[in-house]
Amino acid sequence: MNLKQMAGIEAAKYVTDGMIVGLGTGSTAKFMVDEIGRRVKEEGLSIIGVTTSKETERQAQALGIPLKSIDEVPYVDLTIDGADEISADFQGIKGGGAALLFEKVVATYSKKCIWIVDESKLVNKLGKFPLPVEVIPYGSQQLVQLFEEKGFAPVLRKTSAGEILVTDGGHYIIDLHLKEINDPIALGDYLDHLVGVVEHGLFLHIVSTVIVGGETGPRTINVPE
Amino acid sequence: MNLKQMAGIEAAKYVTDGMIVGLGTGSTAKFMVDEIGRRVKEEGLSIIGVTTSKETERQAQALGIPLKSIDEVPYVDLTIDGADEISADFQGIKGGGAALLFEKVVATYSKKCIWIVDESKLVNKLGKFPLPVEVIPYGSQQLVQLFEEKGFAPVLRKTSAGEILVTDGGHYIIDLHLKEINDPIALGDYLDHLVGVVEHGLFLHIVSTVIVGGETGPRTINVPE
Repeated sequence: MNLKQMAGIEAAKYVTDGMIVGLGTGSTAKFMVDEIGRRVKEEGLSIIGVTTSKETERQAQALGIPLKSIDEVPYVDLTIDGADEISADFQGIKGGGAALLFEKVVATYSKKCIWIVDESKLVNKLGKFPLPVEVIPYGSQQLVQLFEEKGFAPVLRKTSAGEILVTDGGHYIIDLHLKEINDPIALGDYLDHLVGVVEHGLFLHIVSTVIVGGETGPRTINVPE
Repeated sequence: MNLKQMAGIEAAKYVTDGMIVGLGTGSTAKFMVDEIGRRVKEEGLSIIGVTTSKETERQAQALGIPLKSIDEVPYVDLTIDGADEISADFQGIKGGGAALLFEKVVATYSKKCIWIVDESKLVNKLGKFPLPVEVIPYGSQQLVQLFEEKGFAPVLRKTSAGEILVTDGGHYIIDLHLKEINDPIALGDYLDHLVGVVEHGLFLHIVSTVIVGGETGPRTINVPE
């Protein structure tokens, strides 16, 4: 079995009847959504899904998972999502799939967050994976220049067709090629204060459980509080 | 002469040949843009304008003021804009005209900012004017609820037709009826960190000169650094 699929199926076991479930976005989350869809259909699992992207919304609708917007529920019981990098102290980088903004909104209102990854996403320090920063288009070139001056090696994300990528929220993404992030809290704080920055891909103190797909089976790590 | 017009015409005197000028939005800024347009036409003033809203863009285009986007200029020499409230220590609230996001972007890259107001905008403490917070639509109801719990008396801004107002950036505005803001820096910091908040209407340590239209003529206040 594919390691991403293994983690996705394992995480879906945490979903129980009556839950409001945040459904993440990306190649690993896709397997989890498939499995929840299977359980809804075959086991009669009764849940409400809250999606984190148009992509996941389309997938969940096709699978027949009942959906609501984050604004139509009081809170989310459990969100299951992928991550692009998880550090030894369980901070994360997300946004490789360009869905970081809605993913962070849903995670913010979730009682519990599970991240599902394969072993390759576990790192000592964050930063090898480029940090996505979601920005409004107006002034985005000024931000690229600012990040260049700071030595952040910024790259405005393009689609495979070579056009500027526009997120589900109508924004651009600037990927910062930092190589190593020594202080994620300070960096997140700096980015939060920048005018034009809507959100960044540092997910700090958010995850409660990490499920890792590995050669010998899924490994579950409960994050110390 | 209308006091807003008086302040607008006085501020336009600060514009000189060759400048890149940030053009604000709102009823007072409109007079300033009119006056700059007149000087371009009648005096041959040569400037480049950088607009802060679609509304100002249309006005400036109709007046024949050459325009560039904030992303097409290296910086802005001078921005002239209105303000909804200015405190005794020269902090401001902006966003009554729903253009706070682009106004703040342009102000951020401006060497100098002039605010033009009538006497009624000068207050001791900020907060009687509702503080606009620009938010992404997804999760906006969660933020309204959070602000309610905090006692911020939030109101999602509607158009005169009763529909949710959508900003030029594609976002919503939540007006916080705070009555009094004791610590604008701390409040701005809190709002900057909230997921889903794109920007807020607290303009702190931004203005360098305030021009006030009054019964006895315009009064110019240079803000101490």
